Amino acid sequence: MVKIPKKHLQERLFELYFNKVEEENMNILDILDKKEKQETLTKEELKFVVDGYLNGTIKDYQMSAFLTEIDLLGLSDEETINLTDIMLNSGEILNLNIDSVVDKHSTGGVGDKTTIALAPLVASLGVKVAKMSGRGLGHTGGTIDKLESITGFQTSMSLENFKNQVNEIGIALVGQMGNLVPADKKIYALRDVTGTVDSIPLIASSIMSKKLASGASTIVIDLKVGDGALVNNIDEAKQLANLMVKIGKNNHKKTVCVLTNMEEPLGYAVGNSIEVIEAINTLKGEGPDDLTQLIIKLGTLMVANGLDLPENIAEEKIRENLYNGKGYQKMIEWISAQGGDIRKISLARHTKKVTSDQDGYISSISALKIGKLSRKLGAGRLNKDDKIDLTVGIVLNHKVGDYVHKGDTLATIFYNEKTITNEEILSCFTFSKDEVEKPNLIIDIIK
Amino acid sequence: MVKIPKKHLQERLFELYFNKVEEENMNILDILDKKEKQETLTKEELKFVVDGYLNGTIKDYQMSAFLTEIDLLGLSDEETINLTDIMLNSGEILNLNIDSVVDKHSTGGVGDKTTIALAPLVASLGVKVAKMSGRGLGHTGGTIDKLESITGFQTSMSLENFKNQVNEIGIALVGQMGNLVPADKKIYALRDVTGTVDSIPLIASSIMSKKLASGASTIVIDLKVGDGALVNNIDEAKQLANLMVKIGKNNHKKTVCVLTNMEEPLGYAVGNSIEVIEAINTLKGEGPDDLTQLIIKLGTLMVANGLDLPENIAEEKIRENLYNGKGYQKMIEWISAQGGDIRKISLARHTKKVTSDQDGYISSISALKIGKLSRKLGAGRLNKDDKIDLTVGIVLNHKVGDYVHKGDTLATIFYNEKTITNEEILSCFTFSKDEVEKPNLIIDIIK
Repeated sequence: MVKIPKKHLQERLFELYFNKVEEENMNILDILDKKEKQETLTKEELKFVVDGYLNGTIKDYQMSAFLTEIDLLGLSDEETINLTDIMLNSGEILNLNIDSVVDKHSTGGVGDKTTIALAPLVASLGVKVAKMSGRGLGHTGGTIDKLESITGFQTSMSLENFKNQVNEIGIALVGQMGNLVPADKKIYALRDVTGTVDSIPLIASSIMSKKLASGASTIVIDLKVGDGALVNNIDEAKQLANLMVKIGKNNHKKTVCVLTNMEEPLGYAVGNSIEVIEAINTLKGEGPDDLTQLIIKLGTLMVANGLDLPENIAEEKIRENLYNGKGYQKMIEWISAQGGDIRKISLARHTKKVTSDQDGYISSISALKIGKLSRKLGAGRLNKDDKIDLTVGIVLNHKVGDYVHKGDTLATIFYNEKTITNEEILSCFTFSKDEVEKPNLIIDIIK
Repeated sequence: MVKIPKKHLQERLFELYFNKVEEENMNILDILDKKEKQETLTKEELKFVVDGYLNGTIKDYQMSAFLTEIDLLGLSDEETINLTDIMLNSGEILNLNIDSVVDKHSTGGVGDKTTIALAPLVASLGVKVAKMSGRGLGHTGGTIDKLESITGFQTSMSLENFKNQVNEIGIALVGQMGNLVPADKKIYALRDVTGTVDSIPLIASSIMSKKLASGASTIVIDLKVGDGALVNNIDEAKQLANLMVKIGKNNHKKTVCVLTNMEEPLGYAVGNSIEVIEAINTLKGEGPDDLTQLIIKLGTLMVANGLDLPENIAEEKIRENLYNGKGYQKMIEWISAQGGDIRKISLARHTKKVTSDQDGYISSISALKIGKLSRKLGAGRLNKDDKIDLTVGIVLNHKVGDYVHKGDTLATIFYNEKTITNEEILSCFTFSKDEVEKPNLIIDIIK
């Protein structure tokens, strides 16, 4: 039987009767057909698709059909590993020539200033941090935006200077550098407009190809789960985590995923400069409980894997440097090395307090709604080129489980031109007469 | 809970925190997401997609994702009926103002000259035939190409003349006319290059929207099944047939599907002018058994439905006019009305006979391979603009089940510049020492 590709009726009749079908050449229609039949694609076939899409011989509408098939039918772990490898090799792969480089990635949430405190803390223990971060297109800026609220802080440098700084002080953090994973950039943009963002194997290959390209030997991923996160469902989060860990191991990188709660904002501050201040306070030992707990957990895993230490020893070291000021010293050293002055962080011109209209235990603070309001103040951007106001945001006074009296301050709004109403803030909270248990921040660890 | 559309992570975080998600406006990402969850789409949602694709607000890559979802997940009958209606109404719908117009459609096969004999035969009994046919992009030309091998035959005319001719002599057959079903044209072209041709609901809505737009009150479909056809599998063919009949009834059109065998070529002639000659011979009562049988069956259904007669009466009338010359007379009248001279049909300059290399019963003649070889002689076109040689082709001497002796003629090749070898023809045949039963041409009738 001649293998018949899926085609237009007339085209197909044509192909049936001509020699074309007997050619052994790969073509996208055969691959789409094979995937539809749920047969496993070879690495060569996956490479044919990715390369073809990058060089334009495979069109947007064909790639979209392929991504939709993956979204609906999934990929085997082996296919996902192969796809990641092909994407990874579509561009530059940084060779830092530095041992024990540890990378940390967050899938994104509200009030997530973790990297700003965590990176210098682990660097203070000899783990090398050579990290690239992004800008944000969301409720607040990304890590790079947040750091720019420190006067003078430089977020770009040459690869040479980047390596030198990592070798000299053990830490450097910049925006995107080099032509890493161009396949992911192009595919990501298409997924965005074709409803194929929430495919587990596509998320896994996208995150892991970028992490693998950045040259670290250990990868720690903070996978946020909840209404304010990409993944809402714990089972899906576990599946994604297991897949990323498998991909990492296959590439001889130690990989750990920490599933963390993103139902309420992380810490108290949601904005840009106010989040940096919260991160600084955390390295002075004065951070919020949840953020401190997260930094200790992620830091332990980064140090244990980066320096090959037992976790209990690593955790001891992390706690030491969190409270003895060495993490804070490393933060100052790092920020100075990149031109920043930690004493010069701008805040919004106005503040106003929002007080509780009732007594009770706080039963929820919607990360989703707080994020929205913070953006309404100007803390997040709409389009890539929008300017954001780094000084505005919302500082909460309480966390879920706290008891408040009527008239107690619930939050402080930092604002300039745009503001929000007290009612808008109040609508983010729900209360209970009965005691409310504090939620667990750490849901699971998968490695 | 706010409804979250599937989006790019950052885009999605953005949408989460802004008001956009609370808008009630339809958008393609929500519809893709709804379909992915296998929820039933409303007619408004389907219309939003088809209209958006036609006017360019929905892009090729988004439509491709949508078609791939349909290909993998199917459509309910109600959705298919709605989709057909939306496509039908995307352009002009012919209003012929003529009663009892019957249309016949074939899904395409090798040696299919049925329409050329069938149309005048039923017209000779008072059933009105106002038919548009296509050109072929396959092993041989389409009905319109084949008719052009008759010297002088005109395949285009104004709608006014078309209606007049139908009213005067009961039959007119032209190429495409008017702006019928533009949505199908655009979607068909995309399906062709995205591996979404073989979806049953998409085939059904494509065929039926075109048939419904052409203004007939009865639709008879010859659904070819076999290696040489679009649908290879009898179960799928039945599913498709049932769906088309349901769509037809829903539109108050009598609709009948006849499933017919397309494993061996239909009749003996495969080409263009030689197929016209075979059609003419059939109306002289000298046609091949299978073609004659098919014309009697399809003709019976067209006459019974078109004139509201019991099938046994309709069959009697068809047989009468097939053998008393009235069908043949109507054919001459019709071809003359469109400028053709039935005595002037060109044949290729050269012929050669291929003889059997063995004794035995013919157990198969591959429609697929014969089609390929006929195209190799020049009888089919590669691209829309290619010229085809209307005079070349292959005339078989035998059908499956016939006994042949070594040295008996199996086929005659009609050729000009390009030719094929005897071995190539022989490779289309298989033989058996044991008697072989003649295959049933009519597999099933669904109405």
